[in-house]
Amino acid sequence: MEINGVEIEDTFAEAFSIKIARVLITAATKRWAEVAALEATGFGTSVIMCPAEAGIERYASPQETPDGRPGYYIQICTFGYDALEHQLLERLGQCVLTAPTTAVFNGLPAAEKQFNVGFKLKFFGDGMESVKEIEGRKMHSIPIMGGDFLVEENIGAVAGIAGGNFFIFGDSQMTALTAAEVAVDTIKELEGTITPFPGGIVASGSKAGSNKYAKFMKATANEKFCPTIRDKVEGTEIPADVKAVFELVINGLDEASIKKAMQVGIKAATTVPGVKKITAGNYGGKLGKFQFHLKDLV
Amino acid sequence: MEINGVEIEDTFAEAFSIKIARVLITAATKRWAEVAALEATGFGTSVIMCPAEAGIERYASPQETPDGRPGYYIQICTFGYDALEHQLLERLGQCVLTAPTTAVFNGLPAAEKQFNVGFKLKFFGDGMESVKEIEGRKMHSIPIMGGDFLVEENIGAVAGIAGGNFFIFGDSQMTALTAAEVAVDTIKELEGTITPFPGGIVASGSKAGSNKYAKFMKATANEKFCPTIRDKVEGTEIPADVKAVFELVINGLDEASIKKAMQVGIKAATTVPGVKKITAGNYGGKLGKFQFHLKDLV
Amino acid sequence: MEINGVEIEDTFAEAFSIKIARVLITAATKRWAEVAALEATGFGTSVIMCPAEAGIERYASPQETPDGRPGYYIQICTFGYDALEHQLLERLGQCVLTAPTTAVFNGLPAAEKQFNVGFKLKFFGDGMESVKEIEGRKMHSIPIMGGDFLVEENIGAVAGIAGGNFFIFGDSQMTALTAAEVAVDTIKELEGTITPFPGGIVASGSKAGSNKYAKFMKATANEKFCPTIRDKVEGTEIPADVKAVFELVINGLDEASIKKAMQVGIKAATTVPGVKKITAGNYGGKLGKFQFHLKDLV
Amino acid sequence: MEINGVEIEDTFAEAFSIKIARVLITAATKRWAEVAALEATGFGTSVIMCPAEAGIERYASPQETPDGRPGYYIQICTFGYDALEHQLLERLGQCVLTAPTTAVFNGLPAAEKQFNVGFKLKFFGDGMESVKEIEGRKMHSIPIMGGDFLVEENIGAVAGIAGGNFFIFGDSQMTALTAAEVAVDTIKELEGTITPFPGGIVASGSKAGSNKYAKFMKATANEKFCPTIRDKVEGTEIPADVKAVFELVINGLDEASIKKAMQVGIKAATTVPGVKKITAGNYGGKLGKFQFHLKDLV
Repeated sequence: MEINGVEIEDTFAEAFSIKIARVLITAATKRWAEVAALEATGFGTSVIMCPAEAGIERYASPQETPDGRPGYYIQICTFGYDALEHQLLERLGQCVLTAPTTAVFNGLPAAEKQFNVGFKLKFFGDGMESVKEIEGRKMHSIPIMGGDFLVEENIGAVAGIAGGNFFIFGDSQMTALTAAEVAVDTIKELEGTITPFPGGIVASGSKAGSNKYAKFMKATANEKFCPTIRDKVEGTEIPADVKAVFELVINGLDEASIKKAMQVGIKAATTVPGVKKITAGNYGGKLGKFQFHLKDLV
Repeated sequence: MEINGVEIEDTFAEAFSIKIARVLITAATKRWAEVAALEATGFGTSVIMCPAEAGIERYASPQETPDGRPGYYIQICTFGYDALEHQLLERLGQCVLTAPTTAVFNGLPAAEKQFNVGFKLKFFGDGMESVKEIEGRKMHSIPIMGGDFLVEENIGAVAGIAGGNFFIFGDSQMTALTAAEVAVDTIKELEGTITPFPGGIVASGSKAGSNKYAKFMKATANEKFCPTIRDKVEGTEIPADVKAVFELVINGLDEASIKKAMQVGIKAATTVPGVKKITAGNYGGKLGKFQFHLKDLV
Repeated sequence: MEINGVEIEDTFAEAFSIKIARVLITAATKRWAEVAALEATGFGTSVIMCPAEAGIERYASPQETPDGRPGYYIQICTFGYDALEHQLLERLGQCVLTAPTTAVFNGLPAAEKQFNVGFKLKFFGDGMESVKEIEGRKMHSIPIMGGDFLVEENIGAVAGIAGGNFFIFGDSQMTALTAAEVAVDTIKELEGTITPFPGGIVASGSKAGSNKYAKFMKATANEKFCPTIRDKVEGTEIPADVKAVFELVINGLDEASIKKAMQVGIKAATTVPGVKKITAGNYGGKLGKFQFHLKDLV
Repeated sequence: MEINGVEIEDTFAEAFSIKIARVLITAATKRWAEVAALEATGFGTSVIMCPAEAGIERYASPQETPDGRPGYYIQICTFGYDALEHQLLERLGQCVLTAPTTAVFNGLPAAEKQFNVGFKLKFFGDGMESVKEIEGRKMHSIPIMGGDFLVEENIGAVAGIAGGNFFIFGDSQMTALTAAEVAVDTIKELEGTITPFPGGIVASGSKAGSNKYAKFMKATANEKFCPTIRDKVEGTEIPADVKAVFELVINGLDEASIKKAMQVGIKAATTVPGVKKITAGNYGGKLGKFQFHLKDLV
């Protein structure tokens, strides 16, 4: 298979169930909304050693938000709902309530699972807080130094998907990196998905276990995808003309949104000259509940 | 006291001891270095509910970095050294090693306290890692998908200071916010300090304890600094012409750097038309080890 | 009339005919497309002393562009078609052909008026240029140092409208400025309009002629809208509680797009606390062909 | 010669005399100062078809500016002083006076040549303008809608240098482009130089005259530096492993500043993996007054 002359390998991305909360953060300006969203989703690349996987989903126009201000949808992901509630309270309480001019709305008002995050955060108001309604949503208004912080009573969550992915092989490090950037930028326009790694991009793919340090390392670099040591690695997956590989990991609310993100992301990546191949990562289908076959996306 | 016609209250900021690690992250470009630095310092406003206080200190020019690439100094702060080592491993391992094109250098090579973070991260290389020297620094080179990730053997830390601060009173929300932005931008040029809150700014000052919810709330909004309820609060600190207050919290390596940051930050803030007053927060001198008197800064 | 509690004056914006060319600039990444678009539309605020009025209309997703790469629509405006062709050749030839990785597509392929800009620029290729087709468009491919520069044979233009406008009155300079920023950000999402002034905002409204320097000044500051001298100006339009006024000037392809831009821009501006009034500028209906009444937008 | 393993050709950049005015633009925030600086320096890549060559020199900290606000130094360049005065009046009058919260200071107060730009712009104030002094500088304060616009009486200019340059050869388009970006970012920190092309980068090098269209084309693509046609061009300068070339053109106040910019720019560019060669452009020394030999920079 090919897109724009770039080989698309006939393989699949293997992905997993995860719990995802979705939050809409608005602010006085687009820029301040982004500041809060970045702080709230930082230190959130992988649940292996981060307390959550988190990222900005997409910009929300004043034309669509409940308070008519610009905003960003973010997603916060953990394996269990208990951890998710903790993360919501900590990240919204410490990184959004504290941020200039923000308000917080439920990004999944129709979900069955709802956390009463707003109800809990309101106690910061120490009795001066009040309730008001915005577009039919129950909001707690908490007086703070910067003005009033508004937070919706509940934040919804669903069982979503983590680990949608694809890999970009480039003839130079900057080719592969720029292609990854283009893919991330394009996916950022979409509904329902995040790319939680730094700038949306993974530079260091891993394998389960270890060849040499198996006693204490649960995961190590996947040497078969490391271009600088291809000559030393038997069974390397790196072609001779490939100098770097970057991966996009995509979490999302459902299969359709991840499929769409992989589709437009891959297509955009192939427009960068020097991209040699697109592939995806899996565990032979043994571990993950979800499979996204690249041939279905082309 | 006045600067640019703005009243500077004769009071002081009260600050505390904290442990601070300092890291230099370089990357192929300024932009990618910033991406990694933002991810690594996110979810890091206050140790009350974040795993660390963290922020970008300043840009480092290719003319000064060990590898001749652009970079950013970041600081990561916790109350104890054990927590700090954990945070370093997690934040550098998950948010910088995974980021495109990065390298990590010791930001405090002369400090007595050194964590062998690089030594520990190298095991991700699964035996393919090697040692090289850059400008006299011992670096571990770990082959990853995107190229080689280089990390210095040790990362230094010191007993620093948390909680340097000042408050900006404005005649409108946007006056106070813009003044805070200007102050943060100016402090970002300096050596040795960070402003860990979102965009460097605190919108929600707190007091210890609670008037109404004392049974379960350890800290609540400081109602005396909340402009929207000034008419309801006895002993309010908000003058009639003040509509919003924003605070800068400043952590730093030593007293001199915090003093300098407060000085240039306050001065810059007073250039925004409509700033009514600058003050600082303290606990009467009973809790914190350090005092920064505004009269010494003018 | 009121929106979000802000007074909307019952008046109208008076606007004029102008010739507008529309160009789609794509590039390897969103960021490089923006770099080219900014350079090509700079020094383009007002035809009074700039060679054209120019601005970025909106971002174009890889999902919609002919070459599948990210891009920006820009508009270039002059009073006559001759000047417009010169501006197209100069701005596209000097600011887009020279920019990294760009391509240029016709932003108005269905317009009656077409300039063969691509045909003329191709001679830079000195015989090495060739013709190719992208999505049914005739493109000239010119080999340059950075790769191949592609430019469509024709660029379309229409008789459009200049001078749609509204004014934002704020209780502080930063209130009015932030409200203007929010309005500009929102309008940037729309099809068909630009806000050609710096950052989309006019800080210095003018009147025709001069009270004091009539012999040599054709236009001077409109003192009735200048807050810092309101006490000295008889008939000032500035209420006592207004400290600053900023204006958005909007050019667009047709009446509907300007009306929409004014509508969403005004609404967004009113969300910023401290905005006191929205009004619009006109010459009593004597000079301009088009009138946009604020009451029709509310 | 080599830097970081990259070949530096033993050749020189040939540069020319040009007249340069230097202006300091300050604003309420760094961001608004940059907005004005970008607008004022747009449509300013090459005097071949732009009315001036213009660019942002460097950021100026509130700690160093006369009004204690953040700012940017810009340079505007034309071959003669008459054209330069016109450009100053037009670009400052239309792109800075109109921009939110700006002030304009003389960037070369010690130069012999001074244009009374502030004196001329003050008439926009229509008699409401006044004179004030800031740090010993004579400023005209013009009341406008957004507040007061301050502009210094004079703007200085010198006989400077245009056309300092170097070329970056990369193994992929993105390698060469990223190396150029890194070089531009580094040069932006320096005093005295600008890189006037889009994003600081030239994608389309030209030669004088034309092989095929000599009758009407004074300058055409330099086919010997065009990688996509290297197989068709006799005497191509493009090695087999080079896929793209980008050039930095550097204007500056004097030889020392251009030399420094070339030095740090070249060094920074060589840190990007896949850069194959650095060279420079000249006309055999026959046309330009200045020569910058790469061997003197290594």
